Amino acid sequence: MNRPLKIAIAGLGTVGGGVVKALAARGPELAERAGRPIETVAVSARDAKKSRGFTIANWQQDPLALIQSDADVVVELIGGDEGIARALVEGALDHGKHVVSANKALLAKHGKVLAEKAEKNKLQLKFEAAVAGGIPIVKTLRESLISHPVQSVKGILNGTCNYILTEMEASGRSFADVLKDAQAKGYAEADPTLDVGGGDTAHKLALLSSLAFGTAPDLAAMRVVGIEQITPADIHFASEFGFRIKLLGVSRRSFDAKGGARIEQVVHPAMVRARSPLANVDGAANGVVVDAGEAGPYFFSGRGAGEAPTASAVISDLLEIAQGAFTPVFGRPVAGLAALVPAGPDAAPTAWYLRFEVLDLPGVLAEIAGQLSQTGVSIESMIQRGRAPGEPVAIVMITHATGGVAVERALKAIAASDKVRSRPCMIPMEAA
Amino acid sequence: MNRPLKIAIAGLGTVGGGVVKALAARGPELAERAGRPIETVAVSARDAKKSRGFTIANWQQDPLALIQSDADVVVELIGGDEGIARALVEGALDHGKHVVSANKALLAKHGKVLAEKAEKNKLQLKFEAAVAGGIPIVKTLRESLISHPVQSVKGILNGTCNYILTEMEASGRSFADVLKDAQAKGYAEADPTLDVGGGDTAHKLALLSSLAFGTAPDLAAMRVVGIEQITPADIHFASEFGFRIKLLGVSRRSFDAKGGARIEQVVHPAMVRARSPLANVDGAANGVVVDAGEAGPYFFSGRGAGEAPTASAVISDLLEIAQGAFTPVFGRPVAGLAALVPAGPDAAPTAWYLRFEVLDLPGVLAEIAGQLSQTGVSIESMIQRGRAPGEPVAIVMITHATGGVAVERALKAIAASDKVRSRPCMIPMEAA
Repeated sequence: MNRPLKIAIAGLGTVGGGVVKALAARGPELAERAGRPIETVAVSARDAKKSRGFTIANWQQDPLALIQSDADVVVELIGGDEGIARALVEGALDHGKHVVSANKALLAKHGKVLAEKAEKNKLQLKFEAAVAGGIPIVKTLRESLISHPVQSVKGILNGTCNYILTEMEASGRSFADVLKDAQAKGYAEADPTLDVGGGDTAHKLALLSSLAFGTAPDLAAMRVVGIEQITPADIHFASEFGFRIKLLGVSRRSFDAKGGARIEQVVHPAMVRARSPLANVDGAANGVVVDAGEAGPYFFSGRGAGEAPTASAVISDLLEIAQGAFTPVFGRPVAGLAALVPAGPDAAPTAWYLRFEVLDLPGVLAEIAGQLSQTGVSIESMIQRGRAPGEPVAIVMITHATGGVAVERALKAIAASDKVRSRPCMIPMEAA
Repeated sequence: MNRPLKIAIAGLGTVGGGVVKALAARGPELAERAGRPIETVAVSARDAKKSRGFTIANWQQDPLALIQSDADVVVELIGGDEGIARALVEGALDHGKHVVSANKALLAKHGKVLAEKAEKNKLQLKFEAAVAGGIPIVKTLRESLISHPVQSVKGILNGTCNYILTEMEASGRSFADVLKDAQAKGYAEADPTLDVGGGDTAHKLALLSSLAFGTAPDLAAMRVVGIEQITPADIHFASEFGFRIKLLGVSRRSFDAKGGARIEQVVHPAMVRARSPLANVDGAANGVVVDAGEAGPYFFSGRGAGEAPTASAVISDLLEIAQGAFTPVFGRPVAGLAALVPAGPDAAPTAWYLRFEVLDLPGVLAEIAGQLSQTGVSIESMIQRGRAPGEPVAIVMITHATGGVAVERALKAIAASDKVRSRPCMIPMEAA
């Protein structure tokens, strides 16, 4: 047997604990696959005394001490886009250590600089666990779907949001209500903003964009809308039209008038057809559709979080390092990563679901229809259910394909009407 | 740039043509990803004069001459489990050349011996294109879902069968009718036996079993049932019960009384719940569900055949060789591959769909129910539609979970009745 691959693990939460347990339970089999044993030479976590169901050897109170260990690989499972996580990854790469990380925030923000550092020092920097848990989507985009240009990547990348939307649909309860329940059960964080606001999906999408389109990860030009405004009524109407509402990260390529590649990156709740693959990703699962152009569409789904799935992703990265492959961090050398040129907001016109809460008064439909028509938004179908003269009722419409800017303009004008109760809701359709 | 990876291609059909075109169209980008250019130094195909839409350099009439070329890699796209394909792959490995192959039949039959040869000579033998076209399922089982034991793999692995079943469902036409149509359109071979009889699926399943369970590929103990006996009536009744019929390759692990691992490998038309992932793989697409145990279930779908998807698979193998990783052929060194111990036919009891064509005579249902009860098969639900005294009618049942052996015994006895018209039909349910 060859010499062991020595690893140092920083962070023993869900992911780190899973890695330690899997290495302990299946060390010899993994050594056989990897061609060498994987040996943990140091670990660091916040609380040395916490009971974890396994014993910890070579404890280091300071995670940065792992940089000085004799590990070949530092496994960074601390999280956060600055601070200790960043210092640890940078320090490890500076000190000749490969890095495996599950840190989407760090890589989305500093990915290019870190990849440069890895490349300069001929080191590996791998992050399968950062996106979609156990689904090998990072490796697939980096190493498999490479022969024909990718057109788009669309994913359900946040299990908390998908769980909340699935529960809202199943129970008819409100967002706030289901969120509270999810927090009590430990499915959502005490501060859920990063999940439900779409920020976590945005971090993951930035990484998938980079792998799919050969651009440096870029959060700056991303539109991000969370699921906080989705109501049970929207979910109900979606179902009447044959759709389900999912929080999607979408990245797609278009071309400007001069043939230059433009990338649209957006995180938003979207309507997907009930029989489409992404519509059937339920609960805390994740799913990704890759349109590989000539090579066709592919769909991948599975567990996006949890101990075993994320440990599986980390261990697949360790295997690759143990086997000695040298793969560029984002699939291409950093010098080959283009700057991301964002597409305009109307690059991919789509149909929209619109919901208006109006007072049931004569002329209200004419007023809405008139404003939409004035901005060039045409209606494909409409539901108005129930009559309650003088009371609030919902009017729901699906538009023909149109740019979002026109729809926003129309909705702004409509919202100003004294017959309209609350902010109108607009949700795009995504073929998925 | 590093020195080129030199390749020699044998076979310029759909797959080979796709590889040549993709390398020509995106050579520089692939070189950037691979860390070195991929250069085709020789090709061989049956007909040098055929118009292919690209020019061919370094033509060799004899494919075996590629063994003597200065290629680093021989890409075998000839097919067949013996003859030239086998001689070429063996010769290439004997002469220090890596091999990329799309040849499921060859690898299912001789995989272990070829892997031994590759390993001994420190060469790579890769076969992503042999299973499920552009879906990276080989790489995923070999390199990603490795940390937790896989429990089962279930796949729609033959696009021709799935196309035929999908068309039968959409149009209500018979198997023979749809097959003829598929042949006319070029979706099915003139001799369709290997596809519709399940043999092609069996080859692919043997490779997935090996990767999932660490056993040498083994076709010997596989039960293989094709789709020839499926009728529009079965498809219709399946839909009434909330199922669709799909030809599945299924490989799953169980344990005998002494705790020894047993592998069941079966190819059969199966009932899958209408909302399950595999049920929604339509037309010529492929799909695979991997139950990775603790790490959860994963689903992968996409194009299983065609020029660009298969070329994508071959090129991903070439990339891996160019990048210098050394991965064991079936995920583990040959010495670590166990012999496959087949599970008994009743290792995984399941519910069954049963259809009887009977004469509508008094007592016929009692006779069927009696025979089933005698062999311990209990009925969960039943459909008998229409009455036509003295004429043939269909009786359809779903059983509770039971072993196939008991069902077969009951059906044999029932078939002997003079009230039963044709051979009763039995189709298992698969959670998928």
